[in-house]
Amino acid sequence: MNESVEGTTLNKDITLRPVGIVRNTIKEPFLVAGADGLSMRGELHDNMKRVHSSQAESSEIVIRNDLAGILDGIEEYSHIIVLYWAHKVQESRRTLTKVHPMGRKDYPIQGIFSTCSPARPNPVLMTVARLKERKGNVLTVTGLDAVDGSPVIDIKPYVGRFYPDEDIRIPDWMQQIQREVAQVKSQVDMI
Amino acid sequence: MNESVEGTTLNKDITLRPVGIVRNTIKEPFLVAGADGLSMRGELHDNMKRVHSSQAESSEIVIRNDLAGILDGIEEYSHIIVLYWAHKVQESRRTLTKVHPMGRKDYPIQGIFSTCSPARPNPVLMTVARLKERKGNVLTVTGLDAVDGSPVIDIKPYVGRFYPDEDIRIPDWMQQIQREVAQVKSQVDMI
Repeated sequence: MNESVEGTTLNKDITLRPVGIVRNTIKEPFLVAGADGLSMRGELHDNMKRVHSSQAESSEIVIRNDLAGILDGIEEYSHIIVLYWAHKVQESRRTLTKVHPMGRKDYPIQGIFSTCSPARPNPVLMTVARLKERKGNVLTVTGLDAVDGSPVIDIKPYVGRFYPDEDIRIPDWMQQIQREVAQVKSQVDMI
Repeated sequence: MNESVEGTTLNKDITLRPVGIVRNTIKEPFLVAGADGLSMRGELHDNMKRVHSSQAESSEIVIRNDLAGILDGIEEYSHIIVLYWAHKVQESRRTLTKVHPMGRKDYPIQGIFSTCSPARPNPVLMTVARLKERKGNVLTVTGLDAVDGSPVIDIKPYVGRFYPDEDIRIPDWMQQIQREVAQVKSQVDMI
């Protein structure tokens, strides 16, 4: 342990209690974490298509009944940030520190924190989703790429202006992923 | 408990282990959660100035030594998403479901999930920070509004294009907060 870090809260576990659950038709994640890294379930093109179509995919977020009122005012937002738990990642995979992005050997191996890998020390995943409707304790959203049954950790408002909108630099391999998703999108749009 | 939610992972606690810690000069949060909601420590104008100047404030994120390599490749990004734990929020305050935003009675009371309140069922806070430097297991960033000693839960790359950049709708009171921060910014810029 680093000297400057000793005697702090760093060694204390944090306990979360899910605030709700995701309901949708996505039963399995397409990225699977094994002992030696990530691998992709199914075909690359199909998965790129799925990444794209998840933008249109509808999910329900069902919030615990005992948290009544905690969603009040959420209808005023067009988008929300959803933090959820990647419950399909096995506990033992949380020790992975490096992977090939998306399980693709043609991309250079990266530290987990440089990737969107679902297998990470604390697999808290984050998506900005479009809020379509609220009915009581149930939100309907699109663009949430969580699998069915994912425990929800937190909901936050998405407040565009707080985020940088220019001057963003990302690695080449991440640009490549973005190009591939965009390519599938243009193919889908042509159909 | 909602019927559709029973028998799921919803009732199972989630355990996180901090991956690192924040080091900076901010010793106390300016929003404090009491039994009856949020209140602001100090003057409104000073706090707005602080919200603005946190954009320039430098912090170090010290990652656990046993996670060597997990940051590899992070230098390729201009910005990172930092998830951290609001450790100054008392456990008992995690049951709050409604607050006046920023503790201000002139703003309409809101469900916690409609606000950026640090007091929330699972106080996992999120900031997009600018990455200035990486030296081994230490990242230097600006714009991280965590207090000193905050346990870090996760680091993710910030990939601008994945987020919506238009067509964002937010409530009037949140627009008001943005105007107030912008106003302070213009005053600071004039000095």
